[in-house]
Amino acid sequence: MPLLVVGSVALDSVETPTETRENVLGGSAVYFSYAASYFSSVRLVGVVGEDWPAEHTALLQSRRIDTAGLQVVPGAATFRWRGKYQPNMNDRETLDVQLNVMSRFDPNLPEACRRSPYVFLANGSTDIQLKVLEQCRGARLIMADTMDLWIRTQRDLLDQLLKRVDGLVLNDSEAKLLTGDDNLVRAGQCVRQMGPRFVVIKKGEHGAMFFSKHETYVLPAYPTSKVEDPTGAGDSFAGGMMGYLAEQGNFEPKTLKEAMAYGILVASFTVEDFSLEQLKRIERADLDRRMEEYKRMLTF
Amino acid sequence: MPLLVVGSVALDSVETPTETRENVLGGSAVYFSYAASYFSSVRLVGVVGEDWPAEHTALLQSRRIDTAGLQVVPGAATFRWRGKYQPNMNDRETLDVQLNVMSRFDPNLPEACRRSPYVFLANGSTDIQLKVLEQCRGARLIMADTMDLWIRTQRDLLDQLLKRVDGLVLNDSEAKLLTGDDNLVRAGQCVRQMGPRFVVIKKGEHGAMFFSKHETYVLPAYPTSKVEDPTGAGDSFAGGMMGYLAEQGNFEPKTLKEAMAYGILVASFTVEDFSLEQLKRIERADLDRRMEEYKRMLTF
Repeated sequence: MPLLVVGSVALDSVETPTETRENVLGGSAVYFSYAASYFSSVRLVGVVGEDWPAEHTALLQSRRIDTAGLQVVPGAATFRWRGKYQPNMNDRETLDVQLNVMSRFDPNLPEACRRSPYVFLANGSTDIQLKVLEQCRGARLIMADTMDLWIRTQRDLLDQLLKRVDGLVLNDSEAKLLTGDDNLVRAGQCVRQMGPRFVVIKKGEHGAMFFSKHETYVLPAYPTSKVEDPTGAGDSFAGGMMGYLAEQGNFEPKTLKEAMAYGILVASFTVEDFSLEQLKRIERADLDRRMEEYKRMLTF
Repeated sequence: MPLLVVGSVALDSVETPTETRENVLGGSAVYFSYAASYFSSVRLVGVVGEDWPAEHTALLQSRRIDTAGLQVVPGAATFRWRGKYQPNMNDRETLDVQLNVMSRFDPNLPEACRRSPYVFLANGSTDIQLKVLEQCRGARLIMADTMDLWIRTQRDLLDQLLKRVDGLVLNDSEAKLLTGDDNLVRAGQCVRQMGPRFVVIKKGEHGAMFFSKHETYVLPAYPTSKVEDPTGAGDSFAGGMMGYLAEQGNFEPKTLKEAMAYGILVASFTVEDFSLEQLKRIERADLDRRMEEYKRMLTF
């Protein structure tokens, strides 16, 4: 079933201890939609400037990703982000952000997008997320991401958003910030009581935790010795998770757990190279093979 | 099969953000042997001073733990440690260490102990660990723990030790320090190449990783919302793991993974209260119940 993602489309510059890449394809909506495309058709809504390379759009289109909602603004520049990873490849510093076209991002969704049964509000300004939500009246499943900036500056709006989404994904430090609780089990349960039916806390190299009314569990990350660039891991996780849910068409606890696992595995490929390079090399069959290994790892 | 542990026996003072406990029962050999006692008979070798409360020895004896090797030195004081946990309950600061009798700890093992088929060299000075190893010629399985202090100050001796033990357990920051590699998957494989047949990296609230020649896997921690005092979690993990191995009497990959899981679960109880308080309340059946839950959590 069609899956809509609304979020950032970016040109990233990434510095790791060993390498630097300039102006590579990035952005939350891009990682999400590529990850989801292994499972489901995807509609991407975002905005870019006239500096946006047409080949990036072509790449997305090559993967069942509908880019009709990707607006190109003449005379403007694409959102740019520059970050630097510490040697542990987990902590990163944002060196520069040029919002450019993103500063006026206020999407008016195409009619087809408004009828999407699955909707992901990628990390972005909470007021914009709420405006998008207003336009998606008939969705079966709405999930959202957020970050420290919005938790600090748009808390009232975020509280409204949390009451209206089915699922929230956020990372461990954000969950602690949102709840003031340093214990992630309590923090996850606390966020869930703010509204969403389920909450996922992303722990980077340590995996992800799931919280619903009746279930609390944690799944480890797939242990990879090759971490080249963690950028987009969280959005790839969400894309893999929602893509699988859209493919399966149900929200049984078992399906949700499988979706979490697929999210973890797509992300494990994402980090193995810069930008979308590793995802471009793999097929659904590679994910299924890693899933078999992952299940074996967790069986005893 | 009997399991020997040689390590510290201590009176700990622990400060958490909400509570402080003074001079409670602690020490690596104590946590290890209590954790192992759910599965196996245990022989404890350590040293205490004349300030050692007899009730602590009685408690250990009540759990199939042979304390014949617990030496009481007249006119001396027991090893004392004082630590303070940060609000995240993961990072801690050592506020004070009084080695006391531990400064002259150089055990001459009772004959029965020397014939133990399972031996754990708890964290301690590497030269002493090597001397103990010399006395345990017929062991079927020898495992050791170490820490940053010995990695920095006794690296040559540690290299010798690593060539002579079957298994090494150490925590994530120690694995990074020992190998100079920030990627834990590579670090674990690298430590294994230093000698041990298998290596376990403890990740605290994030679980543990296992490395052998043919296997690399990670198991998450059991998600507990109640973390009162993480002291002794690592030693409880090792005790649960080795206790189960001693009970089962084989080193099949499946047994090793089950042993890892039991180690994780004993540790999940340890952190739920100060000192051995929570372990004193549980039985093997509680571990087995949590094991069922844990397996369910990892099945999909």
